[in-house]
Amino acid sequence: MPTIHIELFEGRTPEQKRDLAKAITEVTVQTLGGSAESVDIIFVDVKRQDWATGGVLWSERK
Amino acid sequence: MPTIHIELFEGRTPEQKRDLAKAITEVTVQTLGGSAESVDIIFVDVKRQDWATGGVLWSERK
Amino acid sequence: MPTIHIELFEGRTPEQKRDLAKAITEVTVQTLGGSAESVDIIFVDVKRQDWATGGVLWSERK
Amino acid sequence: MPTIHIELFEGRTPEQKRDLAKAITEVTVQTLGGSAESVDIIFVDVKRQDWATGGVLWSERK
Amino acid sequence: MPTIHIELFEGRTPEQKRDLAKAITEVTVQTLGGSAESVDIIFVDVKRQDWATGGVLWSERK
Amino acid sequence: MPTIHIELFEGRTPEQKRDLAKAITEVTVQTLGGSAESVDIIFVDVKRQDWATGGVLWSERK
Repeated sequence: MPTIHIELFEGRTPEQKRDLAKAITEVTVQTLGGSAESVDIIFVDVKRQDWATGGVLWSERK
Repeated sequence: MPTIHIELFEGRTPEQKRDLAKAITEVTVQTLGGSAESVDIIFVDVKRQDWATGGVLWSERK
Repeated sequence: MPTIHIELFEGRTPEQKRDLAKAITEVTVQTLGGSAESVDIIFVDVKRQDWATGGVLWSERK
Repeated sequence: MPTIHIELFEGRTPEQKRDLAKAITEVTVQTLGGSAESVDIIFVDVKRQDWATGGVLWSERK
Repeated sequence: MPTIHIELFEGRTPEQKRDLAKAITEVTVQTLGGSAESVDIIFVDVKRQDWATGGVLWSERK
Repeated sequence: MPTIHIELFEGRTPEQKRDLAKAITEVTVQTLGGSAESVDIIFVDVKRQDWATGGVLWSERK
């Protein structure tokens, strides 16, 4: 609490996720107070063929 | 906005997801107004061994 | 199964949700097969002050 | 309804999920009433490299 | 971790939620191991007018 | 894409959410690249009586 879910296209590196988790935790604690240990972050990889915007899958967008 | 998540059993073809994303976006715009580009749809494949109804996993239902 | 979550700005009428649930269920059954009774749809109202795009809450966008 | 999502680290056996789905369905029906068939449970496996607590991914915690 | 979300019709009493949180935590620890403190449960109340099955909102089902 | 959901105890001020949305969007763009406009953030307020840790609702924890 807070618990943060991040849906993003697959293909990010472990380093990017590591850095993003660290940075989001920091700004969350700075803004809301509380301890860093109370912040949970879960990354959810989404394939481009599973995400549509405007009715078109990203795997088919140019 | 709107953002739509669709959890379904794995095994659907890319064509089914493409057609469903297109059709849901259309009826959403017809009903709510707004632009198609503002509609995001995310498909979430679920294995039959990860979904239970009535306390029984679908991988074990007859 | 499928289970569909629709996040949308609050303020839609019950009639819009009713019509959208009916239409999405129909296109889902047409595209994926299965019975209408197996389609669950949950609407999640989101306040404009709880949704940000580009780092700006929609309650503060012009 | 109710619909229950369980996010957990990947690596649980099918038997553990089967037993947990059965047990959670039972206590849900005992507490809330209703039929077991109305209880849906979806397991969501999360990799340790996709879950951070305190800003540190579990794949990097000691 | 695990993190459990329970969507249910609004109207349950605080006592029912308290009892259900306790019972689900117990069976989760018994089945998966780990400590009770690592189990988070979040209840999400859903109005009958926001949940449709078979294309019909529960507020309009007989 | 990315789409970020933040579940937190109710009671945060609009200013806190505004600042957090801005800060998280910034660190996300810095870490992952892409445009700020592609980052959606949805805050989900949770009542203390709807969140349990260790089987105990936060409304009943001392």
